[in-house]
Amino acid sequence: MNDHSGPDASARAARAAAALGREILADIPLTRAMGLSIVACDSGSLTLAAPLAPNINDKGCAFGGSLASLMTLAGWGLIKLATDARELDCEIYVQDSTIRYLAPVWQDFVAVARLAEGEHFDDFFGAITARGKGRLRVHCTVPLAHGGAAATLEARFVALAKR
Amino acid sequence: MNDHSGPDASARAARAAAALGREILADIPLTRAMGLSIVACDSGSLTLAAPLAPNINDKGCAFGGSLASLMTLAGWGLIKLATDARELDCEIYVQDSTIRYLAPVWQDFVAVARLAEGEHFDDFFGAITARGKGRLRVHCTVPLAHGGAAATLEARFVALAKR
Repeated sequence: MNDHSGPDASARAARAAAALGREILADIPLTRAMGLSIVACDSGSLTLAAPLAPNINDKGCAFGGSLASLMTLAGWGLIKLATDARELDCEIYVQDSTIRYLAPVWQDFVAVARLAEGEHFDDFFGAITARGKGRLRVHCTVPLAHGGAAATLEARFVALAKR
Repeated sequence: MNDHSGPDASARAARAAAALGREILADIPLTRAMGLSIVACDSGSLTLAAPLAPNINDKGCAFGGSLASLMTLAGWGLIKLATDARELDCEIYVQDSTIRYLAPVWQDFVAVARLAEGEHFDDFFGAITARGKGRLRVHCTVPLAHGGAAATLEARFVALAKR
């Protein structure tokens, strides 16, 4: 979750992601009820996972609120890891999101977050440094086992530098 | 949650809403973790509530996933009560939603769902009866204590008649 590559950077990114997973579970009780875990993290994406059982709805498939929560957190975590790696001390908030529920989810699921088309971390870091505030759009999906997406989220986040 | 008015209809609507609350808690485990309850129901709106404590985020205010979940369920419940009152046996799914997070929520909160502007239950019931499928747009808000909204959701739901 930084601009450098190589095995050291990968190990650092994995450690930072594991620490973020512990923070999320400690600070957001609903994520403990969901059984959230961090699966994978690299310089461009963050993947969170949740088991089906604690996240079912009345039909026995994944509850829309659980899909929305996991996708929103994946986007938030992607940005949090990037600002932490740059040692930018910020609060990050979701501003708005559009979610599409495309197919029911009948098994354990993951949410994968990446920056939306045309978005760049460098512009965002520059805005935080210059003006104390940066915005980023993120695209998340809950992939289906055999290709395609069960759900997608487009969300806008704002980071406010702590004074 | 039907087309008739008067004290009998109000009592029936309140009983149906209480039964729906029990069903939601029994069928969707995450709503038990959220501490969801049904607050009020009339022919045009459904209000759900949740306490802040189990729904906090890393900043100590309400987690976006909890706001999204409560608003989505309020919309879903509004439609479920209406189809149940008409004895239309349907599965109801959320198809898509747009959520705006306008202000942090620092206390227990409610979500109020109503039909979106221009939407009518009669058209929806007619479509289910004629074609086995109906769509409805719902507008939900999480009101702030002193007016305005902390969050809003516009969502589209589809009801599929069980065969």
